[in-house]
Amino acid sequence: MASERSEKWVLTLTAQTPTNIAVIKYWGKREEDLILPINDSISVTLDPDHLCTTTSVAVSPAFTHDRMWLNGKEVSLSGGRFQNCLRELRSRASDVEDEEKGVKIAKKDWEKLHLHIVSFNNFPTAAGLASSAAGLACLVFSLAKLMNVKEDHSQLSAIARQGSGSACRSLYGGFVKWIMGKEENGSDSIAVQLADEKHWDDLVIIIAVVSSRQKETSSTSGMRDTVETSELIKHRAKEVVPKRIIQMEEAIKNRDFPAFARLTCADSNQFHAVCLDTLPPIFYMNDTSHRQALSSVHVTLTIISAVEKWNRHEGTPQVAYTFDAGPNAVLISNNRKTAALLLQRLLFYFPPQSDIDLNRFIVYTQI
Amino acid sequence: MASERSEKWVLTLTAQTPTNIAVIKYWGKREEDLILPINDSISVTLDPDHLCTTTSVAVSPAFTHDRMWLNGKEVSLSGGRFQNCLRELRSRASDVEDEEKGVKIAKKDWEKLHLHIVSFNNFPTAAGLASSAAGLACLVFSLAKLMNVKEDHSQLSAIARQGSGSACRSLYGGFVKWIMGKEENGSDSIAVQLADEKHWDDLVIIIAVVSSRQKETSSTSGMRDTVETSELIKHRAKEVVPKRIIQMEEAIKNRDFPAFARLTCADSNQFHAVCLDTLPPIFYMNDTSHRQALSSVHVTLTIISAVEKWNRHEGTPQVAYTFDAGPNAVLISNNRKTAALLLQRLLFYFPPQSDIDLNRFIVYTQI
Repeated sequence: MASERSEKWVLTLTAQTPTNIAVIKYWGKREEDLILPINDSISVTLDPDHLCTTTSVAVSPAFTHDRMWLNGKEVSLSGGRFQNCLRELRSRASDVEDEEKGVKIAKKDWEKLHLHIVSFNNFPTAAGLASSAAGLACLVFSLAKLMNVKEDHSQLSAIARQGSGSACRSLYGGFVKWIMGKEENGSDSIAVQLADEKHWDDLVIIIAVVSSRQKETSSTSGMRDTVETSELIKHRAKEVVPKRIIQMEEAIKNRDFPAFARLTCADSNQFHAVCLDTLPPIFYMNDTSHRQALSSVHVTLTIISAVEKWNRHEGTPQVAYTFDAGPNAVLISNNRKTAALLLQRLLFYFPPQSDIDLNRFIVYTQI
Repeated sequence: MASERSEKWVLTLTAQTPTNIAVIKYWGKREEDLILPINDSISVTLDPDHLCTTTSVAVSPAFTHDRMWLNGKEVSLSGGRFQNCLRELRSRASDVEDEEKGVKIAKKDWEKLHLHIVSFNNFPTAAGLASSAAGLACLVFSLAKLMNVKEDHSQLSAIARQGSGSACRSLYGGFVKWIMGKEENGSDSIAVQLADEKHWDDLVIIIAVVSSRQKETSSTSGMRDTVETSELIKHRAKEVVPKRIIQMEEAIKNRDFPAFARLTCADSNQFHAVCLDTLPPIFYMNDTSHRQALSSVHVTLTIISAVEKWNRHEGTPQVAYTFDAGPNAVLISNNRKTAALLLQRLLFYFPPQSDIDLNRFIVYTQI
């Protein structure tokens, strides 16, 4: 195995993967281990220059076991989800040769070689900004490259899905659909690209990172509680989402911003509604159980109210809002001019001198 | 008409009607003018000594038109709802004789005589504490007495319903069900008593009036928007509530506090969930669009979280919470001992020296 010249070699590879923001939300699993969802979802992948994960992976015979560091701190890889991803990737690894370093790794060697993984998010982790989506997608993508896994993006998405459901959607740019699939083994629960990043490049996404606080209820336990206790989630998954998926695909295809905005806002609100219909109720968007959270909730609801009023006043939607499992607002405007106006308004509502200084928080990004 | 001796006579009557708190919520009408709901609802009527409306009604040939004062301020009676109630009552009025005053009013005279109505709430108006329920029930009840209307409580409830839907439930004490009915003319959309106030007198209700601010979205327009835009409300009305009504009736009948508490909390949360599923979304329980509302929202969510933790810790529910169209918490405890503990805990979370001085706000009441 490997080179005869030296056992000290290290092969490394670095990749960057952007986060994605769901416009039709994923909430609820039908199978926990394989991470199989109860409905399709659709997302927009952000520009990798803005919110992204950068992951370097390394393999060396000098490594005695698999290790991972996230944002500079070692984290355990013993969790079932990491293990599932690593097992799936190792089983698909191929021969790798680095002529310059004189390194040869045979397919069978991957089972014995250990990996080091170093990952950084350039944005708050676990604050409802899909850090795990970008993170797991990047981990799977970089390891697949290092290991010469020959699967296409769709097949890789099924591996990333087992690490973190929505990670499967971060393997493509533009607009991406995660098909829930029907198979028990999850083989058809994969992501597909609906349109690439050039298809609708008028859209501008502004993220108001109003809190970097980690969420109280993890998505995993939150969606488990919702599936077990909410009377509304089943109706949402079976009756509401399938119609919205068709309408959203149509809106994206036709670059129909009014329909896109209406569906995006409605689906964000419905996701938070089913969280509230959970026992005990989950408040992601407006958790005010902590004094510190009050300011960010104020921002959140002020933003929703301002966007709704603006859209009503214009007669046709200019901006869509969507919130994941946290108070941070993702605002999608129909063009650069609206985005500039939106920024102005945000600065009007939250002037730089106030205690909520959005100058520090606004991330300007484009798909 | 009336006495020959003098045209200066005035006949008056005063009545008091308590507010009621829904434990299975009414939200959504199938007919706006007659106020016909899309689902049955169940409420608890409060002790009239605590939260109630006091209404004095007067009739005199000296009055030139119908007038009403609410909390000392004249309000218009021109609205369709008041007019519907007055018309229904006048058409059912009977002969009235006051021998002492030498006054005789014939049935047909009521069409020509005018009324003065003076109403006071001893609690905040339009702050999600069912002030209109108590108010309209009291108006209908006092006028029916004054006019010698011979209809029973159920038939009066159908008149009160046309003034304010949930008013129909305030005509009885104890536990009351508002049957949605099927008839187009609303004749079978009436309230019935499930159990009187003595049936389950262990229960103690504590209301934390954390805000007397009037709600931003009136219930009327809020429920109209929900019915028109929410995808979840239909499922709630058709599938969820009918089951919960049966379970709640059973829980009340058997004084089964765990089931009663579970249903009460779940239905409160689901009501707020369908509000959030409305376009634009409605935030009654946790409106933080105004800085002033932040403290009360903090109280609201702290109370929910504390009750949920307490109930989980005890293994069986001790306290149920329910919120109407406002941040004020209605807490129902299974007995006096729990109620005392609950008050202690509220004072621990919100000590008298803090900016949220619940000492001033807690209303202690018993069904």
